[in-house]
Formats: sequence, C-alpha cells, structure tokens
Amino acid sequence: MDPKTISLPPMKDLTTDNITANVIAINSVCPDPRLRYLFSRLVTHIHDFARETRLSTSEWMAGLLFLTAVGQKSTELRQEFILLSDTLGLSLLVDSIDHPKPDKSTEGTVLGPFHTHDAVEMEHGEAIHTDPDGTPCLVLCTVKDTEGRGIEGVRVDVWEGDSKGFYDVQYEGRDGPDGRALLKSDKEGDFWFKGIVPVPYPIPIDGPVGQMLKLLGRHAWRPGHLHFMFEKTGYDHLITALYLKDDPYESSDAVFGVKESLVVGMQEVTDEAMATKYGVQVGTKLFIYDFVLVSDKEAAELREKKAREAMEMHGRKMKFFNGLPVPDVD
Amino acid sequence: MDPKTISLPPMKDLTTDNITANVIAINSVCPDPRLRYLFSRLVTHIHDFARETRLSTSEWMAGLLFLTAVGQKSTELRQEFILLSDTLGLSLLVDSIDHPKPDKSTEGTVLGPFHTHDAVEMEHGEAIHTDPDGTPCLVLCTVKDTEGRGIEGVRVDVWEGDSKGFYDVQYEGRDGPDGRALLKSDKEGDFWFKGIVPVPYPIPIDGPVGQMLKLLGRHAWRPGHLHFMFEKTGYDHLITALYLKDDPYESSDAVFGVKESLVVGMQEVTDEAMATKYGVQVGTKLFIYDFVLVSDKEAAELREKKAREAMEMHGRKMKFFNGLPVPDVD
Repeated sequence: MDPKTISLPPMKDLTTDNITANVIAINSVCPDPRLRYLFSRLVTHIHDFARETRLSTSEWMAGLLFLTAVGQKSTELRQEFILLSDTLGLSLLVDSIDHPKPDKSTEGTVLGPFHTHDAVEMEHGEAIHTDPDGTPCLVLCTVKDTEGRGIEGVRVDVWEGDSKGFYDVQYEGRDGPDGRALLKSDKEGDFWFKGIVPVPYPIPIDGPVGQMLKLLGRHAWRPGHLHFMFEKTGYDHLITALYLKDDPYESSDAVFGVKESLVVGMQEVTDEAMATKYGVQVGTKLFIYDFVLVSDKEAAELREKKAREAMEMHGRKMKFFNGLPVPDVD
Repeated sequence: MDPKTISLPPMKDLTTDNITANVIAINSVCPDPRLRYLFSRLVTHIHDFARETRLSTSEWMAGLLFLTAVGQKSTELRQEFILLSDTLGLSLLVDSIDHPKPDKSTEGTVLGPFHTHDAVEMEHGEAIHTDPDGTPCLVLCTVKDTEGRGIEGVRVDVWEGDSKGFYDVQYEGRDGPDGRALLKSDKEGDFWFKGIVPVPYPIPIDGPVGQMLKLLGRHAWRPGHLHFMFEKTGYDHLITALYLKDDPYESSDAVFGVKESLVVGMQEVTDEAMATKYGVQVGTKLFIYDFVLVSDKEAAELREKKAREAMEMHGRKMKFFNGLPVPDVD
C-alpha cells in the first residue's frame, strides 16, 4: 500500500498505560460502527485482564497454545470452541441476552457441540434412535404461542445421545445421522416421537477443554437431556433442552444449562388407549412437555428493552443499529 | 465419577445476572490459587464483554468460527494466534508487564510470529542471509549490564526477513533456516554479524487475522526491523527489535511494536580500517546499537513493585505467589 494514504493516528512508544487507547484509536478507522464498538470493548477487556492479573509471558503463551489446540481439535463434526464457550458459561449468557423470554414462554439453554445439519425428516411417532440398548421412551409435545394457541408447521430439530452417553458423531466411521430427527408440528401444534431415556454423560474430555476442566478440578458431566431446536418464520429461534428430573448432575451441569422450568419428571404410559394410539406398550417410559414460542416482535422488543436498561446502568449513550447497541457519538 | 463426591456449590436457573458469579463459584474448586484468579478475571471480562455489547448469537458464532480458523491456520512454522495477539496490542502489553525496564535499559517489543528454534550458531561477522538481492549491512552491537559493564557469553538470537519482506518460513519447501543466527557475546560484550538492510513488509494477510484487519480498515504493514532475543542466566530475558529510522510505517506499525529508543539511523562504513577489520567494503551500510540487559533481580523487583501499584489502584488485597499476584483471602 502507499504509506501516504495512511489515515491512522500516529503511534509509537506504547506502554502498559497507553496501549489500549492507541489500539482503539487504530481500530477507529473501521467503517462498521457495531464492529468498531465490539472491538473497542474486546480490546479493553483483554487488556484489562492482562493488566489486572499481571499476566506473565509464559501464561500468555500457554493461553495462545491452548486456544490453538482448541481450534485444531475442531472438525466439521466437533466444535471444541463451542465446548469452551459452554464450559465458561458464555454460551448460556449469550443465549439469555439474545433470546430473552417473557414469563410463561419456554426458556432457552445451550446448543452444545453436537448439533448437526444432516438429521432427516421423520413422521410423528417414528423412532429417532437405532440403539438397541436404550430404554424406549415416548415423547409427547406441543408447541404454542404466548396466547396459548398451537402453532402449526414449526420445524423441530431433536437430538440426543445414546444409551452409553455418546452422540452419533462421537463414533468413528459414522455413516449418517442417528438419534436425530426433523419433525413438523401439526395443526394443533402437536408433535411426538420415540427416543430413549437420556442418560448423564461427560462432555468430551480428550481435548484441550477436558484438560482445562481437569486443571480447574471440575467434573465434565451433564445430566441426561434431550435437545430441541424450534424454527418458524415470525417466531424467535428457540434452542432448548429437557432435563431428566433427579439426575445426579441436575445441580452441577458442566455447561450450566439446567433450568428448573426445563426439568421434567419421567412418567409411564399406563393407559391402554394411549398405548394403542401411539403404538407403544403399556409401561413405556413417557416424557410430556408443552413448549411456548415467543414471536419475533415480542423477542425484539424485550431484547432492546433489556439492552437499553443495561446501557443505562453502564451510563452509556447508545443508539441502536440493526437492533444492537452502538455508541451514539454524533 | 461418583456424583456423591461432587463438592461444587449447586447451581441451576442461571441468568444474565447470576451466571458470572456461578461460573466463578464452580471454578473455585481449582486447587491452584493463581489459575483460580486468572479464570475468575477471565470469566468476568468475557461475560462483561457479552453483557455490555449485548452480543448476539450470530456474532458469538462468527467469533467462535474466527477463533477456530485462527487455530487451524497455525502450524509449527506459523502462529496465527500470536499474530492475533500482536494486532490487538496484547503482545506488546504482556511484554511490558512481564519485562518492565528501568531507565537506560533496552526496551522490549513484540516477538512476532516468525521466531523459530532451528537457527544455527554462527561466528561473529558471518552473513546470516543467503539472499543475493538484499543490501548488505554490517551490524555492530554490544550487550552491557545497567552498570555499563559488557556481558560475556550472552546467547543472542537474531532473525530478519529477506529483501522481499518475507521470512524463510513463509516459503514453501523451506529446508532450513535462512536470515537467522545464534551468536554469543565476547568478553567485552561485543557481537557482530552481516545482515541485510531490513525492508517494510505486511504481516501475513492470507489468514483470518488478515481478514480481521481488512474488516477493521487497517493496513498490515510493519516498518523494516531486525529481531533480537537475549538470554543469559541471571539476566531478564529480552525480546526486542531495532527499527529503521524514517521507514514509512514508523508511526503506524500494524503490531504496535515501535519505540523511539529502538529506532536506529542507518550509517555507512567510511573508515578503511573498520572495513578491513570487519571484512566489508567501504560504503557498506552499518547499524550500530548498544543493548543493556536488566538482571533477574532488578526485573523481579520492578515487576512486583508495578504489580503492587496496580493492585492498590484496583483496591485489591493481594499476596504474591511465584512473583505473581493472587487474592489474599486468608
């Protein structure tokens, strides 16, 4: 490039005290106000972190090598950075910021690193698992709006681990999806499928995140759960999960996902008519849950309201840009 | 693991407001007080970043995919995370925290991503480059202590790019080091070698860090420089560089490394006796610099003094553990 065209503020002799302001100044040429804001806060926080902890060169290098290993452990079927974000509580936090829930709507929780995009469409009542060792379980659900009306045609993505606590993608030589399905809610907002009773399992500990948990003295276990993702135009995207009541890890989930409203007690099919209707035997384990989606409009209003409250609390004068805050400097 | 042995505080229903305290609580089982402190501050800062910016799910995912790409771009010969740290000013900051310099000692600067561990030992006066297009340059240096006494036997690692602005590791099919050498200072603390006049060059922009700079509207150029690393037992490890005076990028280095005390004017060998002594022709370009190392003891004292000042400024009650601060909670 032609150095004569440089429009950056000149900088030299940067020190512990002036480096942050100068990096923000050099980034101030960024034409996107949102990206500029994100980087100004990011740089401030990572610099403050180093200053407050007096981060040493060897700690810094250990951190960089750790992050490199996290990136290198990731593949198309395994996302170690999501796992890192999950185990540091960031995933849960971002979900709660971006998808605020009014009272009586279904709460969200962590996506986790095992969602894939190759689940196949199934009819209501089909078995999503081929695992012969799982305890069969009928899952009966509805999906409604905040006014209590069933929503038709919601695309529901469900996925769960097997009886050994592993997802299909954790097996070598996986040749297709198992323990996954794409369903569509019917006119009344109902959908149902056959899964297996979820079991607790450790998140993958053979990578850098596992090493981190070990150094921190933390366990890697998640309580048994079933994942759900809901999508329909006009409704806020919902990523959530149902947790099995009285699981031994209910109060110490390694990724901070459990919410009381998502903990469900296991029942059994006791009714002959019901057994016949759903094609299962009396005595089959049964999970029942009613999901409530928020409209895009409700979610956007609540998100902006909470964002404005947070900005006020920080004393920041902001405007909103695509629904997200940026400094109001004009 | 046996869930009965879990000694973590129970947690459920984590929200935007209580997630941070709970992640810190779950990490509080970490037996290492320094690691516990680092993680408590790290978690606080990344959560505050998300809360203050109202980080969206899609921004979070873009960030995770960016970090994954940074990890995956890294190899044994290219460290994209160091480049990221350099371009965000973190590398310079950590160096200035960990290697504080008393007045009159040589300032440190960024290591950069191109240091290798395979440079070969050379005698004083050898040419470290085979590049036939570089402008030859004699580099005459001394390394002294803060009392002005020459230090014998310092291991000096030097490296620089070629006449096209590339380091050896940037060429495919590299079969060994070029533009690198390991030297030892003599009795008087002198060492010298033949390099080439350094030229400005852009940091590698074919990876995710390059994309980031582009999005930020920043240029990728560094002013021409020579890298030096000094090691001797009893002395604080010094990573530094000499910058060529009047380089067009002297005041806008992409990685914030330039310090006035490290900017050196190019001279020429004008003296016949000198030319003969060093085996060069009259008219050869000449770089002269006197480096001053700090003793380990001086550095440790200054580091702890500055750390104590910083902790006082933050109102934190700390004790020191291997020279690094940890909260004094007893």
